[in-house]
Amino acid sequence: MNRQDLFQQIKAKESYLCVGLDTDINRIPLNVKESEDPVFEFNRQIIDATHDLCISYKLNLAFYEALGPAGLVSMQKTLEYIPEGIFVIADAKRGDIGNTSKMYASEFFDHYGYDAVTLSPYMGKDSIDPYLNYADKWAILLALTSNPGSNDFQMLRTSDGYLYEEVLRKSSQWGSQDQIMYVVGATKAAALSDIRKIIPDHFLLIPGVGTQGGDLDEVTRSGINKSVGLIINASRSILYASDGRDFNKAARIKAEEIQTSMSRMLDKYC
Amino acid sequence: MNRQDLFQQIKAKESYLCVGLDTDINRIPLNVKESEDPVFEFNRQIIDATHDLCISYKLNLAFYEALGPAGLVSMQKTLEYIPEGIFVIADAKRGDIGNTSKMYASEFFDHYGYDAVTLSPYMGKDSIDPYLNYADKWAILLALTSNPGSNDFQMLRTSDGYLYEEVLRKSSQWGSQDQIMYVVGATKAAALSDIRKIIPDHFLLIPGVGTQGGDLDEVTRSGINKSVGLIINASRSILYASDGRDFNKAARIKAEEIQTSMSRMLDKYC
Repeated sequence: MNRQDLFQQIKAKESYLCVGLDTDINRIPLNVKESEDPVFEFNRQIIDATHDLCISYKLNLAFYEALGPAGLVSMQKTLEYIPEGIFVIADAKRGDIGNTSKMYASEFFDHYGYDAVTLSPYMGKDSIDPYLNYADKWAILLALTSNPGSNDFQMLRTSDGYLYEEVLRKSSQWGSQDQIMYVVGATKAAALSDIRKIIPDHFLLIPGVGTQGGDLDEVTRSGINKSVGLIINASRSILYASDGRDFNKAARIKAEEIQTSMSRMLDKYC
Repeated sequence: MNRQDLFQQIKAKESYLCVGLDTDINRIPLNVKESEDPVFEFNRQIIDATHDLCISYKLNLAFYEALGPAGLVSMQKTLEYIPEGIFVIADAKRGDIGNTSKMYASEFFDHYGYDAVTLSPYMGKDSIDPYLNYADKWAILLALTSNPGSNDFQMLRTSDGYLYEEVLRKSSQWGSQDQIMYVVGATKAAALSDIRKIIPDHFLLIPGVGTQGGDLDEVTRSGINKSVGLIINASRSILYASDGRDFNKAARIKAEEIQTSMSRMLDKYC
């Protein structure tokens, strides 16, 4: 999916919500757990309940891989079930030397058909390049993440500012804003204005609204650009809004609440 | 496997060779390609040909994942086939927030039974912690890698030296030398003496000897410590020593050549 299609989606749905399918087998309600493929069945019901309210789904690979090959089958079925026109992200945080990155790019783009994959920048340009050889596919680089450990290295001072700023500056030269996005944690809203000075036009994938405590209004105000430029992810707060049979209804209510706020903010800031 | 067992292995086999099973379906000889599970069959023959010469196998996850769920089945069969007492590394280069890292740790240690997993340090302490909660399992952190892109960020100057030095200094406080190893590329032998000043006792996983051009003697001289402290990986130069039916024999000859050099170096430097 290209940048223009993504922007159209956001306008049409008045939403820049990404639902994170971090589907934890241990948190699936009992009635779903009895089905043949509980992870897929849970996802199917979440997708049915939310697909008109969000513009993206993000699958956290860890939750599928932890179940072995069967987990990957659940993932594949989920990907096939997601309606056309929704931006689908592999939250994989890969990063390896060139010939290995080529295999990962092939896995996520050719084999599974994802639109985008999250990547760690630590190994530099040749670890990212292979992902930029696909038309209308995206590399989403970690910049400033939402977790406490983001202070350990991302916030280190280099001669030219923080490390994450150097990551933004350098890597934004490796491809265009039609190929690269960045992960910025919602808990780092204060840094968003500075980030927008370095990369005014890129899309940002922003996790950490909801369970991790990021503020939607503050993030939107500081991060929005002329094509919105934001994909805000909520995972646990939607998936596990209820732990009972009504989990899908509760998920819809939660997603609707966020979409309504987003619609208001698009009017206000865009 | 704990540190002492690893050291015993190295002494017994007079080898610190790790064979990297970066098994590329496109490079498997024709006679093996016809078997039911070509990736597993290729690995089986490589393991038969090399297991007495190496102390470790490293499976590059990308090569298995690129084949979808079936690739993970080939990986699982390979893991079951590797003889007891060999140190088995998941070269996965993961790195994610705490609750996700917990899932990855469970995947690699509980589900697949790996001894160690390679990790990217970019997201900091809480992204590594979950891997340190397993007895006799190892987190192998990227420090200074062998690829050209290692110059982009790893070699950035911070107030306290290069970024990779800061990674070594800080992360070596998160766990003991019985839990953490580091990846240092063989092409970076010149930096090894400085690295040994920061982490004299840790084991290093060193890829890049062979196809990538690292020098075995130089790496050993600069990196060896009192418990050897080196696991040197060769992948393509062994796996694809011949592209014909004799690939397993050619692989053995290549591995034997490296093991003989290592035996000589253990006499010389240890």
